[in-house]
Amino acid sequence: MSVYASLKEEAWAANMEIPARGLALYTWGNVSAYDASRAVFAIKPSGVPYPELKPGDMVVVDLEGTIVEGKLNPSSDTPTHRVLYRDFNAGSGSGKPAVGGIIHTHSTHATAWAQACRAIPLFGTTHADHIQLPVPCTPYLSKEAVERDYELETGKLIVKAFLEGIPGQCGPMKPSEVTMVLVGGHGPFAWGANAAKSVYNGAVLEEMARMALLTLQANPGATGLPHYIVDKHYLRKHGPNAYYGQGGAH
Amino acid sequence: MSVYASLKEEAWAANMEIPARGLALYTWGNVSAYDASRAVFAIKPSGVPYPELKPGDMVVVDLEGTIVEGKLNPSSDTPTHRVLYRDFNAGSGSGKPAVGGIIHTHSTHATAWAQACRAIPLFGTTHADHIQLPVPCTPYLSKEAVERDYELETGKLIVKAFLEGIPGQCGPMKPSEVTMVLVGGHGPFAWGANAAKSVYNGAVLEEMARMALLTLQANPGATGLPHYIVDKHYLRKHGPNAYYGQGGAH
Amino acid sequence: MSVYASLKEEAWAANMEIPARGLALYTWGNVSAYDASRAVFAIKPSGVPYPELKPGDMVVVDLEGTIVEGKLNPSSDTPTHRVLYRDFNAGSGSGKPAVGGIIHTHSTHATAWAQACRAIPLFGTTHADHIQLPVPCTPYLSKEAVERDYELETGKLIVKAFLEGIPGQCGPMKPSEVTMVLVGGHGPFAWGANAAKSVYNGAVLEEMARMALLTLQANPGATGLPHYIVDKHYLRKHGPNAYYGQGGAH
Amino acid sequence: MSVYASLKEEAWAANMEIPARGLALYTWGNVSAYDASRAVFAIKPSGVPYPELKPGDMVVVDLEGTIVEGKLNPSSDTPTHRVLYRDFNAGSGSGKPAVGGIIHTHSTHATAWAQACRAIPLFGTTHADHIQLPVPCTPYLSKEAVERDYELETGKLIVKAFLEGIPGQCGPMKPSEVTMVLVGGHGPFAWGANAAKSVYNGAVLEEMARMALLTLQANPGATGLPHYIVDKHYLRKHGPNAYYGQGGAH
Repeated sequence: MSVYASLKEEAWAANMEIPARGLALYTWGNVSAYDASRAVFAIKPSGVPYPELKPGDMVVVDLEGTIVEGKLNPSSDTPTHRVLYRDFNAGSGSGKPAVGGIIHTHSTHATAWAQACRAIPLFGTTHADHIQLPVPCTPYLSKEAVERDYELETGKLIVKAFLEGIPGQCGPMKPSEVTMVLVGGHGPFAWGANAAKSVYNGAVLEEMARMALLTLQANPGATGLPHYIVDKHYLRKHGPNAYYGQGGAH
Repeated sequence: MSVYASLKEEAWAANMEIPARGLALYTWGNVSAYDASRAVFAIKPSGVPYPELKPGDMVVVDLEGTIVEGKLNPSSDTPTHRVLYRDFNAGSGSGKPAVGGIIHTHSTHATAWAQACRAIPLFGTTHADHIQLPVPCTPYLSKEAVERDYELETGKLIVKAFLEGIPGQCGPMKPSEVTMVLVGGHGPFAWGANAAKSVYNGAVLEEMARMALLTLQANPGATGLPHYIVDKHYLRKHGPNAYYGQGGAH
Repeated sequence: MSVYASLKEEAWAANMEIPARGLALYTWGNVSAYDASRAVFAIKPSGVPYPELKPGDMVVVDLEGTIVEGKLNPSSDTPTHRVLYRDFNAGSGSGKPAVGGIIHTHSTHATAWAQACRAIPLFGTTHADHIQLPVPCTPYLSKEAVERDYELETGKLIVKAFLEGIPGQCGPMKPSEVTMVLVGGHGPFAWGANAAKSVYNGAVLEEMARMALLTLQANPGATGLPHYIVDKHYLRKHGPNAYYGQGGAH
Repeated sequence: MSVYASLKEEAWAANMEIPARGLALYTWGNVSAYDASRAVFAIKPSGVPYPELKPGDMVVVDLEGTIVEGKLNPSSDTPTHRVLYRDFNAGSGSGKPAVGGIIHTHSTHATAWAQACRAIPLFGTTHADHIQLPVPCTPYLSKEAVERDYELETGKLIVKAFLEGIPGQCGPMKPSEVTMVLVGGHGPFAWGANAAKSVYNGAVLEEMARMALLTLQANPGATGLPHYIVDKHYLRKHGPNAYYGQGGAH
């Protein structure tokens, strides 16, 4: 039996949540699960319909992009996942990485904001329960980057946004705190401590995106939630003094 | 067997309606059921997914916030429920309380209005069948209140809105007549004679919120329903001369 | 066995389509089925949840409003149905009446237009396949009418709109050609040759209402479909030269 | 057994995807499957509800419109399908035709754009994965054309738009590259190498239409995706250097 069996199982189960939660039509989404100790991740094969997907179909890839195990082509977005695991987890050593799972979908409302090239405003506590900033939206990828290596450069675009901030939107961000992003003109990426948590963040992002559109419909001049409420809600659920839930792992 | 068994069963059944009616993603909602004779309520435990929830998981809490029975942490919103039971039922003595069940969700359209900090206009008879006023929306909680005791103060904010009215929106209201409210920047709370009826009011609120948004889309200058139609519809369903239904309890 | 058994079965089956097609929350809708030879109709009892509804629960009422058979209270909207059967079928003698079934719901998008007090514009062939005019919307019922006999007067308001037209909207209409209407501030009514066809028209109206809202979102200056296309589509499906379907009854 | 059995089976299976994917209410949609070697296509019979539809009910029609096999009336839109097969495949000889399957629906959001008489803007990569242009929208059919032969002229209107372009929207287009179109005031048509792929394109079109409306809601001034990203995404999935999927037939 493969040493990657449980990693592939984790990735498969998380991918199956995409159709179950209505996060993508057809094959328009993928999740990967990362094994920090081996520095590899298991990812959905490209273009395989979810109803046909089996745990053994997952493709295991290392951080240089080499296929370690698997007979199918990995998702065409594999280089984006690879860059995010590599750069967002840099410096975590053999400890627990910030990013243990990544999801990319074309979920309807999050994609609409990405197509609008707008950050999703932070209007309420549903949003603040998860991140303390508007959901950032990167600029379009440049022509040179697209021609050089499209999917790899998409990963670099996201990493750059977190390292340097996005002009007119936000300063530098930590991927352990801001667990979601929109790529301008494209769609959402989200991540978490493991694959299941990345899917949770992807589903939450879709709902935040939908609520924000409806909020603007109810009040085109809606303003952002005051920062003291943002911080209170975020810290109810995250960090050393969190008191939401049953005290287990977040 | 616990003396609270039927109360816990009632609370559990009402909580299970939240996912069944699409009123919340994941664990973002909670219902409690009140026992006036014992002055305690049973509430959902914090952060437990609905598919795993069992009647025995419900936590029984008294009006001072002491856990009377239960092994899990109660919902983080428990202090809000507690204040509403205590203050909205004050003066009802051992009789039938106005508030026998409370629901809090982040249902999509009601939350959008809360995020927009706008009362939901009373545009039609669907709304008037349930309350005779626009659905009130409280202001944001103050910084001091958030820092003092967030969830408790959320309850107090609602009670104050009912006792004193909301500047620019409405005068004082009776919780037996206005059975729903939006907390500005947060989301909806609703209540009723028992837990099942609170869920009914929560589901109705979500639909009223959705219809009001679509009404404004069809006619941005839409005006409120004339008061004589509001009263007629409300009194068809409520009060001594109600003639809707089969004459059973409302 | 009751002589009304098949009429009650027809009404029951049509009512069960309301939740199946998502046309109403809870008990917010009702369908009736008319027997022209006996001048009676079977209608849903008031406030009974659909999952509990049985064919034998239907209430049979005559055109004067007298209950002919049934143990439960009929829908509170019964007088509206009664007026429509009586006045829209006047003059059809013992022949086939124009209105053999009526549906009333609070379906979301049709209700939004009713709350907006706007006729639904005729933007496309989906609409023109069913009626050749914008869906008319009556004005609010007057204070005097509401106080006199609310549900009966709602029926009279609809009949008046068809006999005299609606100022600023349309001239007189035939209920055999315009099979749906919005009551201002309230919601939709639709009808057809039998109860099943009234439900079909009610479901179509909801979809037309939704499409019209989205059309205005795509193009706030959208104009009506040219009349020569309206007529072509309507006559493909209705009248002596209809050629849609398998040539059976329409 | 009929020589058309597998063609009819293909058409039937594709038609059953219409209700499964929510692309039409009732009978408002149809798919056909083309057999280039025999120059015939199998199409849904007119007005038959999907739950009752059987493979043997499909009607086989040749390019002159003669029924070759089948007992039921073919879809009233059959002449439109016929013209598209005939003219879009002209010149492909006995080789693989560009159009092996066609779908027509009244799917909600695509129909809204058609009713708005607007091309669907190309805002993002979800769109660019499928076509490299805004989804074209034909003008209304002329009065003369409607009176001459409505459904046949609808086909000619589409063919003309592809041969000559649409003034103010786009130049000439190839049906092998632009696999979808809106007919002004009516609704969407889409096609593909076979019936299943036409349904895929029809479902994709509906999602693109929905996303574009939401994009405009998030940013009324949203601009089109830069052409270098459009081309990159389209060519990831189409043409000789496509690298999406498992290298099988597209």
